[in-house]
Amino acid sequence: MEHRRAKDQESDGISQKDVESLDRMSLSDTSATPGLSTAGGSKGKNTWKPKSIVTLALTLLTSSQAILIVWSKRAGKYEYSVTTAIFRVEALKCLLSFVALYRTWNSQGVTEDNRLTTSFDEIRVYPIPAILYLVKNLLQYYIFAYVDAPAYQILKNLNIISTGVLYRIILKKKLSEIQWAAFILLCAGCTTAQLNPLSDHVLQTPIQGWMMAIVMALLSGFAGVYTEAIIKKRPSRNIYVQNFWLYIFGMLFNLVAIFLQDFGAVINKGFFHGYSFITVLMILNHALSGIAVSMVMKYADNIVKVYSTSVAMLLTAIVSVFLFSFHISLAFFLGSTVVSVSVYLHSVGKLQQQK
Amino acid sequence: MEHRRAKDQESDGISQKDVESLDRMSLSDTSATPGLSTAGGSKGKNTWKPKSIVTLALTLLTSSQAILIVWSKRAGKYEYSVTTAIFRVEALKCLLSFVALYRTWNSQGVTEDNRLTTSFDEIRVYPIPAILYLVKNLLQYYIFAYVDAPAYQILKNLNIISTGVLYRIILKKKLSEIQWAAFILLCAGCTTAQLNPLSDHVLQTPIQGWMMAIVMALLSGFAGVYTEAIIKKRPSRNIYVQNFWLYIFGMLFNLVAIFLQDFGAVINKGFFHGYSFITVLMILNHALSGIAVSMVMKYADNIVKVYSTSVAMLLTAIVSVFLFSFHISLAFFLGSTVVSVSVYLHSVGKLQQQK
Repeated sequence: MEHRRAKDQESDGISQKDVESLDRMSLSDTSATPGLSTAGGSKGKNTWKPKSIVTLALTLLTSSQAILIVWSKRAGKYEYSVTTAIFRVEALKCLLSFVALYRTWNSQGVTEDNRLTTSFDEIRVYPIPAILYLVKNLLQYYIFAYVDAPAYQILKNLNIISTGVLYRIILKKKLSEIQWAAFILLCAGCTTAQLNPLSDHVLQTPIQGWMMAIVMALLSGFAGVYTEAIIKKRPSRNIYVQNFWLYIFGMLFNLVAIFLQDFGAVINKGFFHGYSFITVLMILNHALSGIAVSMVMKYADNIVKVYSTSVAMLLTAIVSVFLFSFHISLAFFLGSTVVSVSVYLHSVGKLQQQK
Repeated sequence: MEHRRAKDQESDGISQKDVESLDRMSLSDTSATPGLSTAGGSKGKNTWKPKSIVTLALTLLTSSQAILIVWSKRAGKYEYSVTTAIFRVEALKCLLSFVALYRTWNSQGVTEDNRLTTSFDEIRVYPIPAILYLVKNLLQYYIFAYVDAPAYQILKNLNIISTGVLYRIILKKKLSEIQWAAFILLCAGCTTAQLNPLSDHVLQTPIQGWMMAIVMALLSGFAGVYTEAIIKKRPSRNIYVQNFWLYIFGMLFNLVAIFLQDFGAVINKGFFHGYSFITVLMILNHALSGIAVSMVMKYADNIVKVYSTSVAMLLTAIVSVFLFSFHISLAFFLGSTVVSVSVYLHSVGKLQQQK
């Protein structure tokens, strides 16, 4: 079972908690919601810079994530349990947020916006994304009864559509018609880029597999959009405090997952079994990517996050050509072309919205 | 050699003279050039109707063309030589145009615009498309030394790009940025829809193969755009007269092709060898499609033609699911999605151009 989990993680790329939806992205500094992009606290043109920086950081971290996975595969299989790795990612994110917060206190002093203490009214929504991810990750173990790994890889692109739809419904933000067209293209392009001779397996997926994939996409999309809602609800609130509390609940609910899934392995082999240098690098990378996701939620939005992770997927493949002498397939070339046009159309759609 | 030709035709779909570029299409009544779409003689809203009708006719004829090819494959291989079939297509188009013209004379009388006699100044450009297609068709026999059939199928999509570029350069008509994006998507989507496990062969195409494919795409695009220029040069001129002269030169230059390629076969087996009921149906279909292409050039343009033939390719596959229990691949589904979004974006781009 444990080996199966390590294998799942390999084939999924990153099948993990709030870093889960990181498999896709954009270098673009596009924003679907020019009006709301000032939510970071500063105003107008000033937000262009942090937004671009965090988007770029997310893109680069996500690309290197996938490269680390390929590297670790070459170095030999890694057999640590995924749940304990996620716990360590959450703990590291928590620690890094606290360090950043401590530095803020030293430079700016403790204010109403950056104090760590919180009210029940503020904190009560924070566990929700963690619970959603927990349910989604538990479902992930059962979906493989109906769907094989290449088909699952394809089905995960449903996340793009679910994020767009829930972003519209829950956050009540509008995308222009061209931006919707661009979003459909992003989904089609990412899927095309991942096509391989086994991809058509997805067409034999039974109805149960489809239902579970759709539920997982909705849970993942809902968690992402809900996180954005939490972070944007109080724009002046320090992002590190918001992160700290999000990650605390991430750790807590991850303990539930460890208990449900890896209790035996942890008892028998210890909490840190199977760790190596590359594993530590991957955990560090996941932690930084997770923080970058929060930052993108603060200064941009879920749409930018999806573009950012999608472009990262393409960057990863291009870098892999040089690092691992990967072959670029025709499908990858065509999918990348469609994704590039999609990024362009998204920004054109934004400009027209602003007119 | 003869069997090879029949085989080439099978694998290419329709590797023929001015019906050659028919492999792709659109049900849409989109026009890239609202200002010029009145060139058919009538004005404004009135042209919407003939334009839609000819576009629809082209789409349906092209879809049924591919279905006839599949049907003929099932019925057994057809061993007539391609050049004599093209000659008969040209002759039939000439005959049909003359019949239509005769009816026009009876109803409207002979006028300056519908008389068959012509001046050297009018007629001198008419051989040019026929010569371009002749050179392209001759090249087609040599490209298979460098490119295999599945790769050639992929490379033929370069026609889409070459038509767009030459349309812009030669006819000096503008496409909006969104329409250009849509055109790139059309090319990527059509190619994606045709992906199969052998498609990646195209990546091993040697430089000679690429050069020949590009030259062939340019010749084909140039012939299409030049035909539009000829037909639109004198908008009031009767289309059947224009067609009649175009097809006369088509027949003449096709005799050159018969002499160069099928002389032996024609001498040994006779001009009409290898013909069957299905062959006659195909020739009739090609003739009507060829006339529909001219009509689209008159009332719409090359861009509409390319969309029309591309959508026809998708329609063919969908109809084949019911007729021949074809399996729809994931690549086909993704490619069709991209083509559909492209058709939508083309019409959105047109509306914005009109504003």
